[in-house]
Amino acid sequence: MKNFTMSALALGLCFSAFAQEPVNSAAVQKIRAEGLDKSKAMDIAYHITDVAGPRLSNSPGLKRAQDWALKYFNEIGLKNVHLEAWGEFGKGWQVDKYYAATTLPFYRPIIASPKAWTPGTNGPIKSEVILIKADTVTDLAKYKGKLKGKIIMIESVAIQPLKNSYAPDVVRFNDEALNNIMKPMEPRTGRPGQAGGNNQRAMMLRMMANRAAIDSVLLTEKIGLKLTYARGSYGTFFTSNGASYKLDAKPVSPELEVSSEDYLHILRLLRGGEKVEMEAEVKTSFYDKDPKGYNVIGEIPGTDPKLKDEVVMIGGHYDSWHSGTGATDNAAGSTVMIEAMRILKAIDFKPKRTIRIALWSSEEQGLFGSRGYVKEHFADPTDMVTKPEHAKLSAYYNLDNGTGTIRGVYLQGNAAVKDIFQSWLTPFEDLGAKTITINNTGGTDHQAFDGVGLPGFQFIQDPMDYNTRTHHSNQDVFDRLVEDDLKKSATIVASFVYHTSERAEKLPRKEMPKPQPPRQ
Amino acid sequence: MKNFTMSALALGLCFSAFAQEPVNSAAVQKIRAEGLDKSKAMDIAYHITDVAGPRLSNSPGLKRAQDWALKYFNEIGLKNVHLEAWGEFGKGWQVDKYYAATTLPFYRPIIASPKAWTPGTNGPIKSEVILIKADTVTDLAKYKGKLKGKIIMIESVAIQPLKNSYAPDVVRFNDEALNNIMKPMEPRTGRPGQAGGNNQRAMMLRMMANRAAIDSVLLTEKIGLKLTYARGSYGTFFTSNGASYKLDAKPVSPELEVSSEDYLHILRLLRGGEKVEMEAEVKTSFYDKDPKGYNVIGEIPGTDPKLKDEVVMIGGHYDSWHSGTGATDNAAGSTVMIEAMRILKAIDFKPKRTIRIALWSSEEQGLFGSRGYVKEHFADPTDMVTKPEHAKLSAYYNLDNGTGTIRGVYLQGNAAVKDIFQSWLTPFEDLGAKTITINNTGGTDHQAFDGVGLPGFQFIQDPMDYNTRTHHSNQDVFDRLVEDDLKKSATIVASFVYHTSERAEKLPRKEMPKPQPPRQ
Repeated sequence: MKNFTMSALALGLCFSAFAQEPVNSAAVQKIRAEGLDKSKAMDIAYHITDVAGPRLSNSPGLKRAQDWALKYFNEIGLKNVHLEAWGEFGKGWQVDKYYAATTLPFYRPIIASPKAWTPGTNGPIKSEVILIKADTVTDLAKYKGKLKGKIIMIESVAIQPLKNSYAPDVVRFNDEALNNIMKPMEPRTGRPGQAGGNNQRAMMLRMMANRAAIDSVLLTEKIGLKLTYARGSYGTFFTSNGASYKLDAKPVSPELEVSSEDYLHILRLLRGGEKVEMEAEVKTSFYDKDPKGYNVIGEIPGTDPKLKDEVVMIGGHYDSWHSGTGATDNAAGSTVMIEAMRILKAIDFKPKRTIRIALWSSEEQGLFGSRGYVKEHFADPTDMVTKPEHAKLSAYYNLDNGTGTIRGVYLQGNAAVKDIFQSWLTPFEDLGAKTITINNTGGTDHQAFDGVGLPGFQFIQDPMDYNTRTHHSNQDVFDRLVEDDLKKSATIVASFVYHTSERAEKLPRKEMPKPQPPRQ
Repeated sequence: MKNFTMSALALGLCFSAFAQEPVNSAAVQKIRAEGLDKSKAMDIAYHITDVAGPRLSNSPGLKRAQDWALKYFNEIGLKNVHLEAWGEFGKGWQVDKYYAATTLPFYRPIIASPKAWTPGTNGPIKSEVILIKADTVTDLAKYKGKLKGKIIMIESVAIQPLKNSYAPDVVRFNDEALNNIMKPMEPRTGRPGQAGGNNQRAMMLRMMANRAAIDSVLLTEKIGLKLTYARGSYGTFFTSNGASYKLDAKPVSPELEVSSEDYLHILRLLRGGEKVEMEAEVKTSFYDKDPKGYNVIGEIPGTDPKLKDEVVMIGGHYDSWHSGTGATDNAAGSTVMIEAMRILKAIDFKPKRTIRIALWSSEEQGLFGSRGYVKEHFADPTDMVTKPEHAKLSAYYNLDNGTGTIRGVYLQGNAAVKDIFQSWLTPFEDLGAKTITINNTGGTDHQAFDGVGLPGFQFIQDPMDYNTRTHHSNQDVFDRLVEDDLKKSATIVASFVYHTSERAEKLPRKEMPKPQPPRQ
């Protein structure tokens, strides 16, 4: 899941009761038996995380995982299995070596990670750590000629001592929380990011420009390594990128995102006037031979002569950040979707409509994989001119909120599907899945479909430790996956897909949205 | 705090009400003003943790911290400031370099630590990781000649997947928990460790003997590095020792205690038949020039001609484990005790009795510092023959349960002090300190005093994250210390010491215990 703010849509609609949407109980029984009792979810997740590793866009790790998915899709009998380019992404990148430790005032290994798309240190380095006090480039003048090869951190009042949390890291939704999700949310006023008004926005832009200017000077001064504070605690830290993935990206200095405890340790020592010495070695590799981005596609072809050209899609993004193995973000969602396909094949389902799975790439950089696919197949959101396939898609179901089991579904403001989904959830009330909300949720690939007027949905999932410990962290690893949750989710998705495929009509749609300005 | 099981003593006594123990409100006001409003606790803790570092017994880190304490004791005006040897400990040890990462199936740095007192790898090594399946030495025959220089782990059914905890990491005692502490605990039947009966004990001893025999073969085979599972999660792991600290300790193989996620990752891959390759480099140093162990001592001399030879002692252990900086175990307790002394000096207190602080060493290996001191000054627990100083000690107060503020005190079965302590706690009810329990608590240095019939007490403290995250972990660092808690505790201790010093009589004692068999 990308770092978007959750958005909301309040339609003020009343749901009208209409004829009960049919549920095929025999099919549900078969799906439950396969999904809950013969699950392969943990095997699938193991290959995506433990074996393939981190799956940063266009990295060798993503390639390994894509190769495995192609193989597995064929093994379980999917058709039309292929990698499909969605457009140009840029460079792949991976860490080949990370080592850092303080050597003064005492030896302590540092829990950290190179920021994505940053260069290495060009061999082992060792230096005093210099605390740079500079709010603007002008303040940097005093450091001129003194920073070459040095390890540096930048003083900031924004970096505060850690505070204890007295709340659990891992949580499930209780009824109260689910009821809150059901309440229509107030529409936002103003544009996101403008909450504090123009003054605050201007201040932030000025600060960002200052930082960029400072980084540019540090590059010219040829610093050895920059240390940056990483959110998190107790050995967990959250990662991000330190440079652009674009082929023509500007060069940057080597940069480590340092776990809060290790960063604050060094910072307190430097603020206290102690001499801190560090040694480090970082090696990273860039991959630019094929800058195109790819999604993995596979199908269970439709069998109804009139409906087989129509499509039900499921998917989740397959790419991850680099410091964990992207287990909850989003091997979990990918696993559930792959397992749902496996379940449907295992019960020998011959769907009326074609069922298609897509494992997106470059979601983390802006939903690029799904947006590229949607533009190619369905419609360009900048002009809303639709292609023929637009009329053929019944629904797209997405999963990308961690390991937590499905507790319901966001309608994305599409009130007409409420009673349909309510019926389809009925056989899974015993699994805790019963909540339907008119609200929408953002941050991931169903938005690419929703954005061009196609029914695209993301399920409600138990939060677990997604927001506290795993989302983009070094601790987003296999151990965070809960087998029982993945099994339940895959079973529910398989049943939703089954019923979407067999339904007399495609799912009802919202009105077509207005064309959107092109994204930067 | 050492890893002892908490023990209990139920005396079945009724507390009788007797004359109200006096409290000097003016003194309490001064102590509160200094301790709560002008605290130096965080400065003190900073020097013990951030600057001095890990303080394993007889390591250079402990030496740095001891040197700082001597200097600070003099600065705040303590007298008779000195290091005092308590007996022979053995070797010091520290980590000079730690680096390890998987290189196949992909690169991932490993969060781990050398086990204390284990040797290094003698330079960088790189090898396939071998999963040894051997319950006995006989099973090792098939590996003969194949393990030289190799990185190994030993298969064990005891290693299970991680389970989510839905409880908070950081907790404070609520009234219910405090009430439970107040309930007299049932005396234990049988000896500790025999809960499962002789069969279980015999099985455990057999398993331990098997492990030792296997380790001995691995040493002969000259393995490169052994990986061991470390308890913990999310980047936190708990450490221990991998060899003896004694001068004549048997040699062992290099050994890493590996965070659960990284260990389980490798284990799953090896169980799944994947090839795992690792690179590592570990350097450690041993220090055996001076095998004696030392405590840091300082005093505020008594001023009453009749009482100045009598002593009130406070203390806490100063040594720590090696993978963190021993912040909650036990820079916290040491800080509180040092700060209590500082408060008493700052208010220019001229005590009737002498007030003495001791910062013990080698608590983690068996309360050696305090036991050695007690044997030298007060009595030998093996014969209970007392020395003259035994009659002169009023009380010893200890702190060693993390950063959590004092919530009350354990009486260690000494019912006669109940009403005294109740009065002394009264001015601190607003700080949440009000609980008196007849129960005892174990695991730390007050036991050395209690064991020879001297009034030795440990306070009740809020648990915070001591049991979940910090006790002997790599994350036991400065960030875990809560200033407000340390301030409150130091204030309460200073007031207890004040009143103990000024009291007409020494604190009442329990009966002298029977001589104890010598410890191994």
